[in-house]
Amino acid sequence: MQYRESKIPEATVQRLSIYLRYVTQLHRDGVKVVSSYALSEGCGFKAAQVRKDFAYFGELGVRGVGYYVKDLYVDLKKILGLVDVWEVALIGSGHLGSALLAYRGFQEYGFVISAVFDKNPDSLPEKLHSQYKVFPMDELEETISEKGIKIAIVAVPAPAAEEVVESLVKAGVQAILNFAPVKLQGRPGVKIRNVDLAVDLGVLSFFVTGKK
Amino acid sequence: MQYRESKIPEATVQRLSIYLRYVTQLHRDGVKVVSSYALSEGCGFKAAQVRKDFAYFGELGVRGVGYYVKDLYVDLKKILGLVDVWEVALIGSGHLGSALLAYRGFQEYGFVISAVFDKNPDSLPEKLHSQYKVFPMDELEETISEKGIKIAIVAVPAPAAEEVVESLVKAGVQAILNFAPVKLQGRPGVKIRNVDLAVDLGVLSFFVTGKK
Repeated sequence: MQYRESKIPEATVQRLSIYLRYVTQLHRDGVKVVSSYALSEGCGFKAAQVRKDFAYFGELGVRGVGYYVKDLYVDLKKILGLVDVWEVALIGSGHLGSALLAYRGFQEYGFVISAVFDKNPDSLPEKLHSQYKVFPMDELEETISEKGIKIAIVAVPAPAAEEVVESLVKAGVQAILNFAPVKLQGRPGVKIRNVDLAVDLGVLSFFVTGKK
Repeated sequence: MQYRESKIPEATVQRLSIYLRYVTQLHRDGVKVVSSYALSEGCGFKAAQVRKDFAYFGELGVRGVGYYVKDLYVDLKKILGLVDVWEVALIGSGHLGSALLAYRGFQEYGFVISAVFDKNPDSLPEKLHSQYKVFPMDELEETISEKGIKIAIVAVPAPAAEEVVESLVKAGVQAILNFAPVKLQGRPGVKIRNVDLAVDLGVLSFFVTGKK
């Protein structure tokens, strides 16, 4: 499989990630073969979209058959770089940060939080004390850089987020999942994904309000 | 302000929600006036987009001045239906569900979790026992319907999600925030927003992998 990361649009990568989630489920359910139509239906896209997305990576399917689920599962994991375990840093261990520490979803996808930072290192709830040590913020750059961590999760209050990102970039972090309620812009060579539950809630609220 | 909910595209509503988040921050910081250019920059959109989005709601700004932050804050909250408190049901109190219960972000936006359901009502961590009672799943429809709850958060495993949505819809729920790792489709009169951290992680992993 040969391709250049820079040539593939982010929207395509996002769909690949959605295909993988669906294919993982099929794989668990023991399904052997899936057509591009069934795959597209299951993921909510058009079949032509699936074929176009996969075209970036050569032949992933078999003409007249569809896709072998296990092969597709392995190929998508390889393409997305989800074969190995990623060490991740978590910045902010307040309410949201400790909720994320308790959330097992990251681990399921091979992301292990291996360093936690907070301006108040005693902020972690008792329950998580035995599992995680919280470092003070002034050790962030050195620790992340020494551990060679490339991915970070930001869960600090909005006003602190930009400065945290600056430190992370200096420490060599290349990808950031941002939960701070502020839209952070990426830098050259640094990808940022903003997660904002408030935006989702706003959309739902608007919808329900319109029906009153 | 007169407008019909059904005429406004979801992408616009989503941007309104992003504007509100930004304007809330400006309001907290004591900023009085914001230009559509500054607003668009802060939210990551083009200025023309901001004006086009606001055009649905008549004149929100003042020509040559921009927008009065406090007025815009109040208008956006009204438009999005975020003035009152929304009672919300949470389905699933496992790892993710209890993480969401511990997360204060919902409350900040006026969403109060007032009923929790799980097939195992003893699943809640000790710490949250005193605050929340977990109802068994067979009381879901009756309880939600009695309380008149219109918004629900789904945090059950993927295979259980579709059935949960069916029950929620029967109980009168109109808007669902879905954390189950499966893309749920909306129904007529029911809006579903899918949150999937695995998709974000896949995108970040792909980006870092491409740089190795």
